[in-house]
Amino acid sequence: MAASEFEIIRRYFTPAAPGRDDVITGVGDDAAVLAVPPDHHLVVCMDTLVAGVHFPKETAPAAIGHKALAVNLSDLAAMGAEPAWATLSLTVPETDERWLDQFSRGFLELAECYHVQLVGGDIARGPLSITVQAHGVVPTGTARYRRGARPGDLVCVTGTLGDAGLALKSELPGDSPLRRRLDYPSPRIEAGMALRDYASAMIDVSDGLLADLGHMLEADGLGASIQVDELPRSVDFVAVLGVSGQDDTALACDLPLGAGDDYELCCCIPKRHWPEVQASLASIPCEVTRIGVITETPGIGCYRKDGSPYTPAITGYLHFTGGD
Amino acid sequence: MAASEFEIIRRYFTPAAPGRDDVITGVGDDAAVLAVPPDHHLVVCMDTLVAGVHFPKETAPAAIGHKALAVNLSDLAAMGAEPAWATLSLTVPETDERWLDQFSRGFLELAECYHVQLVGGDIARGPLSITVQAHGVVPTGTARYRRGARPGDLVCVTGTLGDAGLALKSELPGDSPLRRRLDYPSPRIEAGMALRDYASAMIDVSDGLLADLGHMLEADGLGASIQVDELPRSVDFVAVLGVSGQDDTALACDLPLGAGDDYELCCCIPKRHWPEVQASLASIPCEVTRIGVITETPGIGCYRKDGSPYTPAITGYLHFTGGD
Repeated sequence: MAASEFEIIRRYFTPAAPGRDDVITGVGDDAAVLAVPPDHHLVVCMDTLVAGVHFPKETAPAAIGHKALAVNLSDLAAMGAEPAWATLSLTVPETDERWLDQFSRGFLELAECYHVQLVGGDIARGPLSITVQAHGVVPTGTARYRRGARPGDLVCVTGTLGDAGLALKSELPGDSPLRRRLDYPSPRIEAGMALRDYASAMIDVSDGLLADLGHMLEADGLGASIQVDELPRSVDFVAVLGVSGQDDTALACDLPLGAGDDYELCCCIPKRHWPEVQASLASIPCEVTRIGVITETPGIGCYRKDGSPYTPAITGYLHFTGGD
Repeated sequence: MAASEFEIIRRYFTPAAPGRDDVITGVGDDAAVLAVPPDHHLVVCMDTLVAGVHFPKETAPAAIGHKALAVNLSDLAAMGAEPAWATLSLTVPETDERWLDQFSRGFLELAECYHVQLVGGDIARGPLSITVQAHGVVPTGTARYRRGARPGDLVCVTGTLGDAGLALKSELPGDSPLRRRLDYPSPRIEAGMALRDYASAMIDVSDGLLADLGHMLEADGLGASIQVDELPRSVDFVAVLGVSGQDDTALACDLPLGAGDDYELCCCIPKRHWPEVQASLASIPCEVTRIGVITETPGIGCYRKDGSPYTPAITGYLHFTGGD
């Protein structure tokens, strides 16, 4: 006999870790009851992954579970929020116990990493699709937004760019470091919380740097000048590109500029704060790199280190517009 | 050219009404930032409707939009919460402007009724599916739960039962009152907020009275004795049953007992509070009816007014177990 919704929740979605003190009631009632700390704002975001659209149907279930939560935690990171709770709506075509077991492990392991408690949701039958809402908190007035950049601010990014894009393009095996970047992205929670005190604006890089930086600039009617030779690339990225024998120059710039799924943070930092930002992130295992500067003229200009303009061939992924 | 995700949000999901003061930032950033009032708990719930599973594909888009929000507001009502914000993840196979227009009207009209602001979400391409998360608030310590009933408490329900079930069974046209009950359920928000001061336990009737009352009783290891002749039935329900010429006795009891989708509240009230409950609900256009009593012996017994036991033929709808 197929397991009931209640049985699936009990068997697969009950974390081993003790619950958070701020969860008054979690899974198992009509709704969850939660205590937001005094003098904090609630920060919420919701993202859906559809099989065959956002991930291939044969993706490892643990990777789907991880990513469904990670993309939401990345949105919280972009606001500077500290994650607290998640809700999960899981639509599955059938009760596949092996799939559920691995999916829930992927989800709950990441949740535990960031002390996120699963407090509710829904399990439905239908074409495979996962919707997660993440809830975080920030001290009142400290959330960062897409808007807020000023001309002259430094454009910075965390970590490295282009890894997930190169993994997709190169069809690397599941255990390669770049492939793990694509399948198991790390939300930049600690970096977001450290950067919120200094950044004038912040966004996460999910659609690709140019697309997401573009959203940030549109919010203020500003532009940016980006030094493509400064784009942070991982050791693995450089190694795989080197071996591939493909046209390094274009891909080495275009993937970090245009490919999505890296889930790094892009932020604008007033120049005077740059030393504090470096000091503040020193204790976090995540670099932050200056890649350009905000300009008054709208639009994004890309430049090589000799000052010559660089025109990338790819743009970010946009739903419903047939973008890459 | 198909509209982009941003354009769809701007065109269809921007409410005409001014925003709530407690929304610091809503749609359009990586996440929404919200202010929960001091000395209140946050109450959240999430429900998914999948086309072909939870509603027939040909259902009026406005009804789908209404119901996707209503089922969540009903869950908030069951906790005694006051609704505040909603997030919406909409997965659609294509950009059908007429469908989006009507769906969003159904959603936003109900949202406006209860001063709920849409603060975020996601639009994805895929098989039609809607996930909504509703967020409400309750004064600290006043949320009601499924657990908490005591032997001797009155079992009460709001409104009338069986309307949605009879509409489904009779395949009534879309403009008939019973059909509107099925397609455009009214979440019992005001009743839930009034009842939270008196109820020992509360749940909403989504799966059918017996199933949902069963969940409530299981939480405390208790039972209930239900007087089937006391079950509240609407004038329309009685009229349609009378015309149908079907076996009135069984359907008149079984639909209110077993059919789902009415989204009334079922609660347990300590007897001494009954007069206060009646006074408190006098100003609300929603009756509350005593239908039985909580017993120490587990299980639900149904009785006719002559004291003879009554055995219903149908049970509630349970996902994944092949129930009715």
